[in-house]
Amino acid sequence: MHVRKQRLLTPGPTPLYPRSLQAMMASDIHHRTEDFRTVYRAALKDLKEVLGTSNDVLVFCSSGTGAMEAAVSNLFSRGDKVIVCSAGKFGERWVEIASAFGLDAVVLKAEYGDVVSPERVEQALAANPGARGVFVQASETSTGAAHDVRAMAQIIGKTEAIFVIDAITGIGTMPLDIDGWGLDVVIGGSQKAFMIPPGLAFMSISPKAWRFAETANLPHYYFNLKKEKKSADAGESSWTPSTSLILALGAALQYIKQFGMDKLVENAQLLARATREAALALGLELFAPNSPGSSVTAIKAPEGMDSGVIVKEFRTRFGSIIANGQGTMKGKIFRIAHLGYFDFADLFAVIAELELILAANGRPVTFGTGVAAVQKVYAEAALPKATVVS
Amino acid sequence: MHVRKQRLLTPGPTPLYPRSLQAMMASDIHHRTEDFRTVYRAALKDLKEVLGTSNDVLVFCSSGTGAMEAAVSNLFSRGDKVIVCSAGKFGERWVEIASAFGLDAVVLKAEYGDVVSPERVEQALAANPGARGVFVQASETSTGAAHDVRAMAQIIGKTEAIFVIDAITGIGTMPLDIDGWGLDVVIGGSQKAFMIPPGLAFMSISPKAWRFAETANLPHYYFNLKKEKKSADAGESSWTPSTSLILALGAALQYIKQFGMDKLVENAQLLARATREAALALGLELFAPNSPGSSVTAIKAPEGMDSGVIVKEFRTRFGSIIANGQGTMKGKIFRIAHLGYFDFADLFAVIAELELILAANGRPVTFGTGVAAVQKVYAEAALPKATVVS
Repeated sequence: MHVRKQRLLTPGPTPLYPRSLQAMMASDIHHRTEDFRTVYRAALKDLKEVLGTSNDVLVFCSSGTGAMEAAVSNLFSRGDKVIVCSAGKFGERWVEIASAFGLDAVVLKAEYGDVVSPERVEQALAANPGARGVFVQASETSTGAAHDVRAMAQIIGKTEAIFVIDAITGIGTMPLDIDGWGLDVVIGGSQKAFMIPPGLAFMSISPKAWRFAETANLPHYYFNLKKEKKSADAGESSWTPSTSLILALGAALQYIKQFGMDKLVENAQLLARATREAALALGLELFAPNSPGSSVTAIKAPEGMDSGVIVKEFRTRFGSIIANGQGTMKGKIFRIAHLGYFDFADLFAVIAELELILAANGRPVTFGTGVAAVQKVYAEAALPKATVVS
Repeated sequence: MHVRKQRLLTPGPTPLYPRSLQAMMASDIHHRTEDFRTVYRAALKDLKEVLGTSNDVLVFCSSGTGAMEAAVSNLFSRGDKVIVCSAGKFGERWVEIASAFGLDAVVLKAEYGDVVSPERVEQALAANPGARGVFVQASETSTGAAHDVRAMAQIIGKTEAIFVIDAITGIGTMPLDIDGWGLDVVIGGSQKAFMIPPGLAFMSISPKAWRFAETANLPHYYFNLKKEKKSADAGESSWTPSTSLILALGAALQYIKQFGMDKLVENAQLLARATREAALALGLELFAPNSPGSSVTAIKAPEGMDSGVIVKEFRTRFGSIIANGQGTMKGKIFRIAHLGYFDFADLFAVIAELELILAANGRPVTFGTGVAAVQKVYAEAALPKATVVS
């Protein structure tokens, strides 16, 4: 009856930057040529600039999980004691990787939707003086909650441990002063705020973390930080790089540099705030009300309604692809993303669609209520002098 | 401060169908090969199917104006008397082409926003018994008004004249039963409901119109209907075709066939109706309230406000490219399009943006009012059982 354009609105893969897709058309390039080295060097340089760090930044042809493994397998030794903050599916992934490589993990668990406080990290470090590292998610994508990375860094910086941060959905959605706060290892992924398809992972490594690489003894081959650093210095990657994605990354970094990383963070924060206001205006409950991040907002399905129905109707009624909950949260929450190439037009549509989906499923909805909440956030930010009725 | 994705929302070029863009990547094809003939034949066949006619359908490498000229230069002779309905910028184009080729045009003029009634056409034909043709716009893109093509066809069919219809924005936005109603020449363009970039024009030609080609004596070379028909029968175009656009067209026609041309028309009609409801809910005036078409809705800028400001703020605040008025209507109206690959998500965003732009310019606006009007139209069409409050 009506056109439904498919729109990718998940917290990864995120909406694609069109010029990055166009750039991928130039993939008829050999990776061991000066032509490609020029592209690769520029991408590494721009990535460092966008991340705002003087630390080394490496690129891997892998998903973010590959870089998470790389941090463990390159910087630690069998039996090392580490503190792992686990507040969702991705915290659990740190636990699984630590276990797979034989680390001795002290797990600080938080309920889904909640976070691990800096105080708990401080206590755990005090209780485990030999701890070699602390692992955390800057933004826990499965719940939408965000950790206080800055406060944690202040605590960890006083110890011998290194701070290893899965910032895969944290980059571009929260301030992350890598050098100023002392964030030793920061991991990112291409299909998040970098607005390109999946397939690349990024890692920044502090001098303190590099010293760990000197004594670490865990087995690794594909993910070899020292080798990769040497290759990067020569304008190359150790193994065959994902040339199309490096071209896409180059274009996206041009956009992010021009737009400003701080502005991209502001954009995500503004959209996240507007989404929370819209959810509350529609009488819905937030899943992570106390520590909401800005990468994604998890909203509880109304009592008696499976969130899968909401996710499905977004797709079938409107072509909008949004995320269900993961693991035990599946069916209970749905997630609206904000990281990267999202704008107000996306959100106006998503909230108008949500209102219709609620109405279609027997919830009393006053049309326009959620959208008006989003508009108010826009108006407060951008129209200080506007005439706003109601 | 916030991301603005550029969105093309004009009544041509219209939003592009993504798979058509992808198909253009296969343009490394020579147009005088069996590979390309296969593509071209399929496009011509699908175009006929989508237009729902057994008349010949030709494709030109030109804009729609080229096909308008082709109709004049191939089917008429110097001094031929013709009736031209002129209700806007595109009606004026028929007058200009007729004049350029020395036709004797009787112009039936309507005020911008209004249309020429079938009765006036009937009277003009009676007053000019030797008239050889009647020219009209199915949908007058400059004002958003639509002519009653069906009623006109019934009148013209009883005379010796042929009915020549610029349906460039009519196709896909209104029912057009070419064979059933007796529409002799129907002209379309690629960048409209066909959802691909500009560069192709289409024309269907009835047996009655072909007979006119036998005696017509106006000069033409590039636009040669008889030659083009012969080429088309051989699976080719007379001159070098726009291969990339033919590939794009093929993909778009697959979509339109699968979706259904009748459904595409319904979609435009639904979005147009929702847009009119939203405008009225926001206290705005429609420019063509009596004969609104569904290709585009022209809305008057509020008293004392230049519509150029609205168009500009759509772009600068939100990245949305919408259309200003043309000619003397510039500054007075703005136009929201519905033809082709438009959906409710587009409209939810456009109306929410319009509300904010009005508020930003001192108009009192209750946020969500216009969006709610769109939601109501959706709900009436798609959610008969929904609980709608207010």
